Amino acid sequence: VQIDRSSGTPLRTQLAQAIRTAIDDGRLSYGVALPSSRALGEDLAVSRGVVVDAYAQLAAEGWLSARPGGTTRVAPPPVAQPGRRGASGGAAAEPRFDFRPGIPDLEAFPRAAWMAAMRQSFADAPAGALSYGDPQGVPALRQALASYLGRVRGVLTDPSLVIICSGLVQGVSLLCRVLRARGLSAVAVEDPGWRRGREVIAHCGLDPVAVPVDEEGLRVDRLAASATGAVMVTPAHQFPTGVALSSARRAALLAWSQKTGGLVIEDDYDAEYRYDHQPLGTLQALCPGRVVYAGSLSKTLAPALRLAWLVVPPGLVDDLVAVKAADDAGSPTLEQLTLARFMESGALDRHRRRSRLRYRAMRDRVVGTLAAHAPEVRPTGIAAGLHLLARLPPEMAEAEIVAAGARRSVGLYGLGFYAASDRPRPGALVIGFGAVPRHASQAALAALGATLAEGAAGARRSTARRHGALAAGPVPAQLPGA
Amino acid sequence: VQIDRSSGTPLRTQLAQAIRTAIDDGRLSYGVALPSSRALGEDLAVSRGVVVDAYAQLAAEGWLSARPGGTTRVAPPPVAQPGRRGASGGAAAEPRFDFRPGIPDLEAFPRAAWMAAMRQSFADAPAGALSYGDPQGVPALRQALASYLGRVRGVLTDPSLVIICSGLVQGVSLLCRVLRARGLSAVAVEDPGWRRGREVIAHCGLDPVAVPVDEEGLRVDRLAASATGAVMVTPAHQFPTGVALSSARRAALLAWSQKTGGLVIEDDYDAEYRYDHQPLGTLQALCPGRVVYAGSLSKTLAPALRLAWLVVPPGLVDDLVAVKAADDAGSPTLEQLTLARFMESGALDRHRRRSRLRYRAMRDRVVGTLAAHAPEVRPTGIAAGLHLLARLPPEMAEAEIVAAGARRSVGLYGLGFYAASDRPRPGALVIGFGAVPRHASQAALAALGATLAEGAAGARRSTARRHGALAAGPVPAQLPGA
Repeated sequence: VQIDRSSGTPLRTQLAQAIRTAIDDGRLSYGVALPSSRALGEDLAVSRGVVVDAYAQLAAEGWLSARPGGTTRVAPPPVAQPGRRGASGGAAAEPRFDFRPGIPDLEAFPRAAWMAAMRQSFADAPAGALSYGDPQGVPALRQALASYLGRVRGVLTDPSLVIICSGLVQGVSLLCRVLRARGLSAVAVEDPGWRRGREVIAHCGLDPVAVPVDEEGLRVDRLAASATGAVMVTPAHQFPTGVALSSARRAALLAWSQKTGGLVIEDDYDAEYRYDHQPLGTLQALCPGRVVYAGSLSKTLAPALRLAWLVVPPGLVDDLVAVKAADDAGSPTLEQLTLARFMESGALDRHRRRSRLRYRAMRDRVVGTLAAHAPEVRPTGIAAGLHLLARLPPEMAEAEIVAAGARRSVGLYGLGFYAASDRPRPGALVIGFGAVPRHASQAALAALGATLAEGAAGARRSTARRHGALAAGPVPAQLPGA
Repeated sequence: VQIDRSSGTPLRTQLAQAIRTAIDDGRLSYGVALPSSRALGEDLAVSRGVVVDAYAQLAAEGWLSARPGGTTRVAPPPVAQPGRRGASGGAAAEPRFDFRPGIPDLEAFPRAAWMAAMRQSFADAPAGALSYGDPQGVPALRQALASYLGRVRGVLTDPSLVIICSGLVQGVSLLCRVLRARGLSAVAVEDPGWRRGREVIAHCGLDPVAVPVDEEGLRVDRLAASATGAVMVTPAHQFPTGVALSSARRAALLAWSQKTGGLVIEDDYDAEYRYDHQPLGTLQALCPGRVVYAGSLSKTLAPALRLAWLVVPPGLVDDLVAVKAADDAGSPTLEQLTLARFMESGALDRHRRRSRLRYRAMRDRVVGTLAAHAPEVRPTGIAAGLHLLARLPPEMAEAEIVAAGARRSVGLYGLGFYAASDRPRPGALVIGFGAVPRHASQAALAALGATLAEGAAGARRSTARRHGALAAGPVPAQLPGA
């Protein structure tokens, strides 16, 4: 452990960070006893209180377990959470290690900064702010968002075109009902794509029309043939394949919109985390009059906040706000004021920067795990976001790997789960690396590696049997058709 | 000012309360300079710090204005708030004194207790609570509500039948869409009644059928003739007339439900504030299988929280939760956890008790103002809630009084605003006394009294002219037909 007395960072913070890193990279593994605070304090020539504080902080975060007067140890990875209510209403057991895509690291939620923003914005709010609010959203938040989205994502807008909604689910629902009232009967969606989005579209009485995605993103030629009046796309990092919409396709999509009057709904769900290049620009910045830009806090902070936004062309504002007002009279006010304060104070930018580094490191470790344990499994879509697509060779059946994961309590999700049609497609896993808590990441990656190694070994054996020969090394990573 | 050293209440709290009362009842009027903290401390034989604290508390609440080193004075009544967005989308100027019904005293919001509940529940929440929640509502809150509603309102339920929604607007919207999917085309509503409720029903594609209200509440005979399959009622304190549904009508309404299979939606919007009798029981307690019980925090704490609940018969739960999940995937989690904590700690009960005393006192002052300035205006519906109905004699035209109020920047609301049909009805004002801040109540009541006195005097003059005689005293309060 290195302590740098000249860095300006408090010693307890440095110490806690050093211990986190040691657990994270496996130098300290589950159950290892840490030195007593007195002993470690003497070793590092810091006061015992510094060590006590660092241990307490790490225990609160779940990295260490400590009993008063007892030994402090590295805590075991978390056990299953209480069951989530499934779509069927029944409670399903949660896997011990969950590679579910689309969930951020909830243990990294900046609780202290969020509570501080809440306390400050609440203290500043006049009594009138506790009455019914503007159903379009609190003006201070719409102002903060217009400025933030312009700066971070190049979105061209002003506060009068921003609509605050309770999660993107509500945003899609509002849009669908307005489009339906204007005579639309269908909305095109990406295949594979966001399953929940398709369900919401159908629930609003519109037909979700599946348009295939290839390595350049949405097949705009197929969209044009579908004769729908609106399309929902994820251009920056397609969900779930991870591909970016190519320049040619972007141009074609906007040309389609201009020619047919079709509306483009740009779901920018995780583009704030881009690792390998400068962030891709938005479609909205190219054509703000025909594109609805949609984003939320669910990937950046937490889904539980239920805060999302639409940036819309002027002609849609009044209808959308009318539906929002009839739905729930506007989202809760205090959380909107909190978010405005959180953005204005720079706390969101700080959280985003820290998270980006952490997620990039986690992505690299997932890629490394694949390479080490199952080199025939090829990671793609890794340039951004909280998940990657692990393409399986034909010998490795998606459903079998998912089942093998379940046996080890490793939550894996096949690409088939996101398919909107029966089109043939290669097998793949959508591996989310946001939801795995950092203090469990070592064990989670080991379990992932073991699952994939088992699947790859089984595939090699069956290939060898089919070929009537002994297996002689790994199958090449680049299989035709994969 | 009386200070009681044996009461157990801190001296600063006693002093602040005594000053509030003095401002409230007019002994201290706007602009009056208070003694210096040193001088008042000496007068009362308390330390200067006690006076400083009391002044600071009152300044924070808006009763006093103070500059550091300057004189502390009684603060002026509040000026107009920034405009609310009206139904038309334009900003309307707010009246200086607003007797709008249905808004609680937002300056009395228990900010410290709410923030404490939020801080504690946030600190206790595991990281998993920051993910997507149960769309039916956080289990801890449903549990707390089932117990609270059973204790306070006699509602018969358990947590599995409670659905948390974002305000009662969303509750009505969810119900309407489920009823429509089951084949209903209309929902009966009270006339006069909750205007927003009618709008939401219509927005969901159902026909709001107006059923008249008389001095016993809803005309159940007319409901039976309307052939609708559901009815929304306010049995405890009809909105806006304030009458309670009579025992005979309750029995008739439940008999209608049993006979036709019709659903009763019981909107218990303000029955927690009952002044003159024991609270009336709920319809739900008499027939939980045919009644949806609906309530919210909007009258008890603040509309900005957007927290409401439905208690529903078992056969409706799954459909309602499915619509809620498709609408917004559930209400924000942290506020639900906060409310659960707020209820369990007893803070909601304390706030309710305090508020009840305050609203009852305010109701008495409004009644007294009517008696003193316009005895021909007859207050009714005063046994509960945050508003009363002031019935006008035929000579006093509702619209003219509302206009006279507007000229004095007194927000008055005629009964006609709530009418759902063109049926002839007596003129009346719906006078809300929740939204008037306490520190402005003296001025607000004076302005209300002056407005009504002007209207009454004008009515007397025109009556006298019509009768060709000089006005000789006030018109009798009990006019035929009023």
